[in-house]
Amino acid sequence: MNDIKLIEEALYSYIPKELVREKNLVSSIEYSLKAGGKRIRPRLVLEFSRLCHGSDKAALPFACAVEMIHTYSLIHDDLPCMDDDDMRRGKPSNHKVYGEEIALLAGDALQSLAFDIMSRKETINNSSSDCAVRCINILSDYCGTSGMVGGQVIDLENEKKTADLDSVTECNLKKTGALIKAACEMGCVSASADEEKISAARSYGENIGIAFQIVDDILDVTSSDEELGKPVGSDIGNNKSTYVSLLGIDECKKRVDSMTSRAIECLSVFDGDTNALKKLALNLKSRNK
Amino acid sequence: MNDIKLIEEALYSYIPKELVREKNLVSSIEYSLKAGGKRIRPRLVLEFSRLCHGSDKAALPFACAVEMIHTYSLIHDDLPCMDDDDMRRGKPSNHKVYGEEIALLAGDALQSLAFDIMSRKETINNSSSDCAVRCINILSDYCGTSGMVGGQVIDLENEKKTADLDSVTECNLKKTGALIKAACEMGCVSASADEEKISAARSYGENIGIAFQIVDDILDVTSSDEELGKPVGSDIGNNKSTYVSLLGIDECKKRVDSMTSRAIECLSVFDGDTNALKKLALNLKSRNK
Repeated sequence: MNDIKLIEEALYSYIPKELVREKNLVSSIEYSLKAGGKRIRPRLVLEFSRLCHGSDKAALPFACAVEMIHTYSLIHDDLPCMDDDDMRRGKPSNHKVYGEEIALLAGDALQSLAFDIMSRKETINNSSSDCAVRCINILSDYCGTSGMVGGQVIDLENEKKTADLDSVTECNLKKTGALIKAACEMGCVSASADEEKISAARSYGENIGIAFQIVDDILDVTSSDEELGKPVGSDIGNNKSTYVSLLGIDECKKRVDSMTSRAIECLSVFDGDTNALKKLALNLKSRNK
Repeated sequence: MNDIKLIEEALYSYIPKELVREKNLVSSIEYSLKAGGKRIRPRLVLEFSRLCHGSDKAALPFACAVEMIHTYSLIHDDLPCMDDDDMRRGKPSNHKVYGEEIALLAGDALQSLAFDIMSRKETINNSSSDCAVRCINILSDYCGTSGMVGGQVIDLENEKKTADLDSVTECNLKKTGALIKAACEMGCVSASADEEKISAARSYGENIGIAFQIVDDILDVTSSDEELGKPVGSDIGNNKSTYVSLLGIDECKKRVDSMTSRAIECLSVFDGDTNALKKLALNLKSRNK
């Protein structure tokens, strides 16, 4: 079975089945969990766990938890009071299908479900209370005020002004980077790896997290310019600050290269097969959507 | 120090201090955490922990976590897409002060913070990984699809029709009851109590939770009638189904009495001093707001 299938099978198994009066909520949760995506975060959990000689069985609940947090953040992000997006991954966004009330509550419930599945007896039996509690601490810390949600708030602040590179970097380190970092660390922790490995995984995650965001910014400019038939890069600086508007496309590409190399260097402390994580970093760099 | 002071001191100590660019978010979280209330849920955690010979130090993070979940649910409940309430506890609701985006994110971050503080090293040092992970599982389960959020969805469904007693009961058991039950159980678990005690605490919580909601329904009718100068109970049945509209005030009062007695009976399995929890159940019954 390929990894995406493995992850999705586990992820969908956590969708509650027995609820009757709440079926609208459950169906809204299912709609967003099944909306696809590259499943990068759960794949990072699995790959780091394997690299630290952990079992997939032990890592999968943590892989699913980080994907649930990511999914809840997308549902809330699309709400009218936030980005007001009608579409997500080519399909109507959650609130367009289920209404704002249910979409808000589905996001809330998905966050709870992430912590629920990490703390279940089966999860602990496949790893340990110590592993579970540490993964819970990593994920809850990185998804809250000092992580993902904090990054979303900095993003809102940055929209109001011409933000500088420091504040764009802090925003991205938290908004996108925090969950990616969490995934890498949790993979190691679920396999009871030592602190040196956990710390190397964190650096790998930090580097690919920022590279990922810079590539996003580049794609935003190049793909929209191409669609509109304008010369590539011509709308730099028209909107809010991004890596591209602050550094230019060439410098952005250089940084993506050097961060990807640095991420790959971080893998040298592991004694297992690092090919999958090397490939993942290189694929993120050269993706075109 | 009285218990409310003890709880609030611990609760406020968890408000992040070091964040600069996210200060609006932090201030929004602080605004709602400091908005007062009876702190019933954290007091239940403390009292059950004491009854099981646990230390306040071990119980306080779990007490604060349940209050954070309660607070996040109030912030999200007041949002325009939900109840659209401008006021909460006599003050402007969170989104009236900070805007909808920040209010939504503050609620999200408070939920993360609840799981963060339960999984920190200091928390585990004062209890254990096993206790922490079980409390996390209780709280995440009771606040998600099959608990609080599920109850909110049933409430939305019940607004669309004339709901029967079964569905009003299921709604209340989950919407209000689940967190109260969680608090009682977590108090015992944080003190490493045995299963018989945890189960008795759950029954106590279930009984006072429903009694609490019936009293709320009674107060809604009696206080608004008094304010409007109408005879007490005259608007029964005008709005959505409540215990009062379905059962009448006299039957409601009878049920509150019997549930309070049943809750107090549950305390008989404990060998400690049950006076505080008896008083708490009786006070909830005879409160007038």
